[in-house]
Amino acid sequence: MTASLHERIVVIDGLIVAKWHRPVFEAMYQGGLTAVNCTCSVWEDFPTTMKAVADMKRQIRENSDILMQVHTTQDIRRAKEAGKVGIILGWQNSTGFGDYLPLVEVYKELGLGIVQMTYNTATTVGSGCYESRDTGLTDFGRELIDEMNRVGILIDLSHVGELTSREIIEYSKQPVAYSHCLPAALKAHPRNKSDEQLRFIARNNGFAGVTMFPPFLAKGTEATVDDYVEAVEYVMNLVGEDRTGIGTDFTQDHADSFFTYITQDKGYARRLTEFGEIINPEGFRRIEDFPNLTAAMEKRGWPEGRIEKVMGENWLKLLEEVWGA
Amino acid sequence: MTASLHERIVVIDGLIVAKWHRPVFEAMYQGGLTAVNCTCSVWEDFPTTMKAVADMKRQIRENSDILMQVHTTQDIRRAKEAGKVGIILGWQNSTGFGDYLPLVEVYKELGLGIVQMTYNTATTVGSGCYESRDTGLTDFGRELIDEMNRVGILIDLSHVGELTSREIIEYSKQPVAYSHCLPAALKAHPRNKSDEQLRFIARNNGFAGVTMFPPFLAKGTEATVDDYVEAVEYVMNLVGEDRTGIGTDFTQDHADSFFTYITQDKGYARRLTEFGEIINPEGFRRIEDFPNLTAAMEKRGWPEGRIEKVMGENWLKLLEEVWGA
Repeated sequence: MTASLHERIVVIDGLIVAKWHRPVFEAMYQGGLTAVNCTCSVWEDFPTTMKAVADMKRQIRENSDILMQVHTTQDIRRAKEAGKVGIILGWQNSTGFGDYLPLVEVYKELGLGIVQMTYNTATTVGSGCYESRDTGLTDFGRELIDEMNRVGILIDLSHVGELTSREIIEYSKQPVAYSHCLPAALKAHPRNKSDEQLRFIARNNGFAGVTMFPPFLAKGTEATVDDYVEAVEYVMNLVGEDRTGIGTDFTQDHADSFFTYITQDKGYARRLTEFGEIINPEGFRRIEDFPNLTAAMEKRGWPEGRIEKVMGENWLKLLEEVWGA
Repeated sequence: MTASLHERIVVIDGLIVAKWHRPVFEAMYQGGLTAVNCTCSVWEDFPTTMKAVADMKRQIRENSDILMQVHTTQDIRRAKEAGKVGIILGWQNSTGFGDYLPLVEVYKELGLGIVQMTYNTATTVGSGCYESRDTGLTDFGRELIDEMNRVGILIDLSHVGELTSREIIEYSKQPVAYSHCLPAALKAHPRNKSDEQLRFIARNNGFAGVTMFPPFLAKGTEATVDDYVEAVEYVMNLVGEDRTGIGTDFTQDHADSFFTYITQDKGYARRLTEFGEIINPEGFRRIEDFPNLTAAMEKRGWPEGRIEKVMGENWLKLLEEVWGA
């Protein structure tokens, strides 16, 4: 029996924010994931984030039969060869730096690969996508970008406000990404990106990973994996076949308290949005179902070369450009 | 002209707690130091210590013409070859771990090589040498030792209480050190170690680095470099020629406020001791004078092999045993 396409290719998920415990690691392993951007920080401050990074490293060590940490794209290739899931440390906010720039290179040394500049609301860096007035990138934000560019940490804009995103895209010397987004043209939502936003990031050497988080999908909890592939295709037609990737935003195994936490500013303040029930697209309900995504692309008639790129090779190319190796 | 003995040998200072700025780095370079255990934390909590580590890394980068960070003893050999000063990140207290054990391996990854278990007073780990009642190693302290042993960080006991020190020496699976101490037989002082303490650490595969901090020297501020070599010799006669090293405790360029800070519990609480004026031994007043120490040993008639060991090779052997490379 020959290996399936899904088994042969490098599969990268540009964002998972699941509960970090053995069952989820096993799900990533069973789903055939080569590397995953794993969120270690959302609203948390510097010491809490640092402890979360330490926890993730401990978990990688304790689950080293199926996991390995990846610092470079060579490490991701090595994870593929070793048949392990490569863990990219990632944050969905820059609060973990504690507004202290010398920590940026320290976290890079520890393997932090992808950082979103703001999560939903205003920070010292800029405005989030739920902030009532987006006032753009701050002066300190520019200093932070300089440092992230210097050490090579990918800037993520998925939850960042529109003006702040545009100013970051223009200011950053390195390409930046929406790691997990959906098109506003298919569903109007503060988290979704307009055609113009998607074209703009692409024109500036950037990247779009496509999510399937139900509140942002046209069909919501009624969507299927085929609807998801259609959304990926919509984004691809705007940003190009070489700049599109996957960023599922799986929240697997989290309790209700997690969704309460992420939908209130700083985890406890005013409520920003209401997600309702989270049921992922049929056929792609759980991380274990990842092979169904590749199969849905094949069913839709995508050529293998395109599937290979969108499922992982495009992410690899972007990360190599930013990380330097 | 052939190189002097001092220029040829590996020179390691087991403790410097100077003001970290370019003039001190130049002094270490001029003094011919191969590697130095540089204190980044004294009383500070976890986030403050982490920022201090970040600051030190930034300084190593900004002064990379004369400095390099060393993680291993091979790195120290490389520093010697490159003619640079190797920086070992060190702490004089374990408060920087924030009582959070998963941070131990994170700091090890960042290059933390030597950590004192307590600084002067009682902590969650044990009692310091100025604590009125030494109650020994705590249960949590045992867990911390297990983790430091596992990842390979050298345990330092210089400022630790006598009972706590004994219990740590007995409990640790790896050799431990007094990185900077003087013999109580030459001057009675809470910081100085009795003959029995020095013999005990040696019997347990441990190590003693000898300091010349004036308040602990028999002749105080009137001492000379020859008096210091005599004190080194006294320690060596107790612990053996292979277990003796240098740990100066240079405080170069610090303002008075630093001494106020270190002599009050936690930097601000009750006063623990009064140092008076700090004037280092004549001939060895400043870090730049390090070649005079080697010369004083030669003058005293020490064989070259012994000088080589005490000035650096013994430290290298100990660190290799603890760090694993």
